[in-house]
Amino acid sequence: MDLTSFVTSLGTYFGIFMGLMIVYAFLSWRAGNNVVYYPNKILKGLEPLEGKNKSCNPFIWMKVALLPSGVDTAVYFVFLNTVLSILVLSAVILLPVLLPVAVTDERVVKESLTSHYNQTVVDELQKLTMGNITEKSNRLWAFFVCCYWFSLVALGLLWKACKHVSCLRAQALMDPNNVKPEQFAVVVRDIPAVPLGETTTEEYVHSYFKAIYPDTYYKCMIVTDNRKVDSIEYYNDRINETVTKLEAEQKITQSKKQQNAALVFFTSRVVAASAAQSLHAQMVDTWSVSPAAEPRQLIWHNLTIKYFERELRKYLVHAIVALTIVFYMVPISFISAFTTLQNLVELAPFIEPVVRIKALRTVLEAYLPQLALIIFFYLLPKLLLYLSKLEGIPTQSQAVRAASGKYFYFPVVNVFLGVTLGGTLYRTFKLIEDNPKSLLSWLVMSLPDNATFFLTYLSLKFFVGYGLELSRLVPLILYHFKRKYICKTEAECKEAWAPGDLGYETRVSEDMLIVIIVFCYSVIAPLIIPFGVLYFGLGWLILRNQALNVYVPTFESNGRMWPHIHNRILASLILYQVTMLVYFGLQKFYYASLLIPLPILSFIYGFVCAKKFYPAFERPILEVAAYSMREAPDMELIFRSFIPPSLNSEKIDDENFEDSISKF
Amino acid sequence: MDLTSFVTSLGTYFGIFMGLMIVYAFLSWRAGNNVVYYPNKILKGLEPLEGKNKSCNPFIWMKVALLPSGVDTAVYFVFLNTVLSILVLSAVILLPVLLPVAVTDERVVKESLTSHYNQTVVDELQKLTMGNITEKSNRLWAFFVCCYWFSLVALGLLWKACKHVSCLRAQALMDPNNVKPEQFAVVVRDIPAVPLGETTTEEYVHSYFKAIYPDTYYKCMIVTDNRKVDSIEYYNDRINETVTKLEAEQKITQSKKQQNAALVFFTSRVVAASAAQSLHAQMVDTWSVSPAAEPRQLIWHNLTIKYFERELRKYLVHAIVALTIVFYMVPISFISAFTTLQNLVELAPFIEPVVRIKALRTVLEAYLPQLALIIFFYLLPKLLLYLSKLEGIPTQSQAVRAASGKYFYFPVVNVFLGVTLGGTLYRTFKLIEDNPKSLLSWLVMSLPDNATFFLTYLSLKFFVGYGLELSRLVPLILYHFKRKYICKTEAECKEAWAPGDLGYETRVSEDMLIVIIVFCYSVIAPLIIPFGVLYFGLGWLILRNQALNVYVPTFESNGRMWPHIHNRILASLILYQVTMLVYFGLQKFYYASLLIPLPILSFIYGFVCAKKFYPAFERPILEVAAYSMREAPDMELIFRSFIPPSLNSEKIDDENFEDSISKF
Repeated sequence: MDLTSFVTSLGTYFGIFMGLMIVYAFLSWRAGNNVVYYPNKILKGLEPLEGKNKSCNPFIWMKVALLPSGVDTAVYFVFLNTVLSILVLSAVILLPVLLPVAVTDERVVKESLTSHYNQTVVDELQKLTMGNITEKSNRLWAFFVCCYWFSLVALGLLWKACKHVSCLRAQALMDPNNVKPEQFAVVVRDIPAVPLGETTTEEYVHSYFKAIYPDTYYKCMIVTDNRKVDSIEYYNDRINETVTKLEAEQKITQSKKQQNAALVFFTSRVVAASAAQSLHAQMVDTWSVSPAAEPRQLIWHNLTIKYFERELRKYLVHAIVALTIVFYMVPISFISAFTTLQNLVELAPFIEPVVRIKALRTVLEAYLPQLALIIFFYLLPKLLLYLSKLEGIPTQSQAVRAASGKYFYFPVVNVFLGVTLGGTLYRTFKLIEDNPKSLLSWLVMSLPDNATFFLTYLSLKFFVGYGLELSRLVPLILYHFKRKYICKTEAECKEAWAPGDLGYETRVSEDMLIVIIVFCYSVIAPLIIPFGVLYFGLGWLILRNQALNVYVPTFESNGRMWPHIHNRILASLILYQVTMLVYFGLQKFYYASLLIPLPILSFIYGFVCAKKFYPAFERPILEVAAYSMREAPDMELIFRSFIPPSLNSEKIDDENFEDSISKF
Repeated sequence: MDLTSFVTSLGTYFGIFMGLMIVYAFLSWRAGNNVVYYPNKILKGLEPLEGKNKSCNPFIWMKVALLPSGVDTAVYFVFLNTVLSILVLSAVILLPVLLPVAVTDERVVKESLTSHYNQTVVDELQKLTMGNITEKSNRLWAFFVCCYWFSLVALGLLWKACKHVSCLRAQALMDPNNVKPEQFAVVVRDIPAVPLGETTTEEYVHSYFKAIYPDTYYKCMIVTDNRKVDSIEYYNDRINETVTKLEAEQKITQSKKQQNAALVFFTSRVVAASAAQSLHAQMVDTWSVSPAAEPRQLIWHNLTIKYFERELRKYLVHAIVALTIVFYMVPISFISAFTTLQNLVELAPFIEPVVRIKALRTVLEAYLPQLALIIFFYLLPKLLLYLSKLEGIPTQSQAVRAASGKYFYFPVVNVFLGVTLGGTLYRTFKLIEDNPKSLLSWLVMSLPDNATFFLTYLSLKFFVGYGLELSRLVPLILYHFKRKYICKTEAECKEAWAPGDLGYETRVSEDMLIVIIVFCYSVIAPLIIPFGVLYFGLGWLILRNQALNVYVPTFESNGRMWPHIHNRILASLILYQVTMLVYFGLQKFYYASLLIPLPILSFIYGFVCAKKFYPAFERPILEVAAYSMREAPDMELIFRSFIPPSLNSEKIDDENFEDSISKF
């Protein structure tokens, strides 16, 4: 890609961004769109334009968008912040040092003169990269030192972030004004079959825990197998059958429905925290106890899956995902090949008039093959979340983390490896034919070329991506469409504008792809750093606004996402260090091996972090749980908060549920 | 090895065994030797010959030797028992089926006729092995079925043993008559530097744990840095210096000597068990809490090693051991080459007269090169125990397990791989020169040859080895020598006959070598099974006697050795299954791949066991700790039992120690 086309696309993207900003300013100003642009505030009962100046300045959100809501959101901003700081702090050295050093050398010019292809085009952008440095040149020392600088800055700031997040989590869990009900409960799974002498699972659980915790045991709540019933159907049934008969029947089934899982409540946070991480039974696959999560994020039907079945499901799902990562292009290509315009017209003759329009036909023919890929990437997060829940994961937040971990590989394989390998292979196809051994060499030497592609990719991401994010055009259209044609009741209307949460499962993974790209090219093509700064800076501002005005967290895991994020940043750093090691080696720099301490240092850093910080994200900490509360907890309120909505609903009277609540 | 020489060595070993038995019968009958043959009984205050019939029958111990002492000893016998049962139960099928099937085929005879070397000698023993079966023969089905039988018997009995040991451990820990002081304590390491406002580590620990466990915290005991002082030296110092000055000085140093580790005592076993497995601090490398062990097996100076230093030490020690395993032959060969008789005479001229005796000279010249190896294998367990303690392991029993784990590789590498590879390579040297690709084929095909060697090796082990074990000739000679020439005080005399414990660190590893050998050859050369039965049967009887009369356990870990043992038996089983798979393949048996489910089954079995049983050996179990005691524990007695002997000794008055005992 030469300079002109690069500048052209940059300009185009910027134009789109400005357009979207104007659209946002215009639309968000209209009160009818408030439910799309300020759903968070509306749900909190705040005035949508509160905090906005009466001056109708649409960019006023930049000022107010500075307060995080919840630790999970805060952790996401710590992530953005940390990457941003790493890039800014390294740019201070890298840009003024490396760009002049690179541009004053002349390898690219020389090579384009001697090369037997492309003799006329000199890529101006490539002159600003490490690819322009002559082999074995002493100028490589500048890049070498910058390699160390970047790594040390990254490790230092990551360490600071780890401490900060660790502190945030502890503070949130200790907050005397916001005592969380889940801190008083533990989840008990794999309850053995009720022995002779006890009548119900409930009594069994009660006597078991009462014996171990005579002073602090409060109550237990057995998981029951409640069918989801449509209320209208339910009431019809109720009317049709004799009411009394039904109720008697229900009472019997209710106690039969008691499953092998329970929530156990304690009157002390320390005891609950300690119980959640202790082995209770000599046979470890029975009475397995784990920390409880917020009531809203418990996946009830997963609680009853047995120990070894969970293990089996986990391995099966991992195998399926691994196969999908490796082979996902196969079925997509297959489907693409079949979804030609010709076949579509045969299947659905009513689209024929559309196809007759020539301009449209050209566009469709061009984009149809990619349609399968687009649909695949749209459905993928949903599929992965579904698969993660199939594993038997007990909480929503953990399922989201698991899905995010799985999703991570797809953009990386698709974009990073796809472009780097694909682009390189294409360009060096002829050379490889002559000399197949130089594959690796050419692969790395053409990294600076790929950098230009990624500059464009990044600007697309932050101009068009964030523009769409802020202007919320798709949700806006969907909302107005639904309101006009679908919604009948008020509840359905509310559903139509429900904003959802930040969507960590895809967002973090996509940001992480940018982290990998920017880290890997930071020293090779330092020009990518300002683009990275723009991506994370703009992202920070726009997502602050969205977090405040739009998205509503569906759960709060108090920052348990952090080890997941931190590990992946560290992996990107190590990938960068190894890339640099290979790249310096291929530049025939004699001292390349002096870079070996860097990945070793990163591994040691990762090991220390994993030992020092991570366990506090996995398990409840006693010194935190022992922190004094403002007042004694209302145990009945805490217990009630865990009653599932389907049983707690005012539509159905409570008596059905009585049986599944401990009477003790 | 042909039949005659095999029978000859078998006869010789049996003769030695009978001789040693007569020696034992004669010596153990003499009262003067009681301290060598019945130290355990003497230390327990029992009459040595109690339980013995007045008939002076020396084999009467077979009847009494049926009561184990302690769970650790019991677990060792469960191990012997299980292997014995596996062998007996499989022998019932394998011997009557496989021996006739093998002996009626005639591959060995045919091959010796066509082979271009060793044409005259037909190995009679080899006719009884799978090596005598013609390639692709249907007779291989018999061996195939036996493979499955052996594996299933082994897995079934191992499962039973796991359950049994798990039960034994739980029972011992629940025993209301034998409440263990360590169940009320936890070890706290990595105590952070004392903050401003607290004066001593002790106060800091006290306030920290009192805040978390307001009701159940009892006291803490800070680890102090006490020099080991020889009592005579100590009293001399005391006389020389002014006594009062010294005491004042000591008091100050005592409180300065407080280290960053402590024992914390609780009034409840459940709380102690729960605390031992919970995270206490947000920064996980501080306040790390683990279960306490028996007072006598705490390695005090290891408690103060810091978190990451422990990790570092662990990796360093593992690296050193790995290098030793791979390269241990190098320095030994080097030393052997230098310790020729010539050199020795030059170094130590006084041995010259000995060397002049011709017969002795011949023997010495033959055995001197192996001397370094013998000394190495004598010193090795001590070295490994030393290295394991260097890792920073806090308890004696854990150090012994770690040493045993390391020791395991040496006999395996030395004997099993050495003989199998060495013997095979030697015999097939010429063939390999012609056709290097057939190395693997020949390696496995000559397994039946090696079986004959191992038959002899096993009989050496159980006849000579156990004969020496029972007759205790070496300890007897040492004791009488020491008593005559060295011992002066009664304490030193007692030291001279101190029997020590069973020595799990070497014993288990050496038994395990026999397990590997017998398992691997069980189907290939079923004749090895009776030898295995003799080894474990005789071992069972003789060690029962030794456990009852001789050895005194130096610690009791309530069977924590079991996962270690079980894992290694399972590894032997998988090694056997893989060997069989390869061996069947080389016999060109078409259905060899039908054996693949076996190692998979073993892996799944191992996985299930590791999940279901192992954690209960690692961590205290709450339902066990909650088991009611006969009477309320005397906390002061429990606390006192942990005071180290050097501080608790009656020679020194208690006041020195007052400072390191919590006053709260």
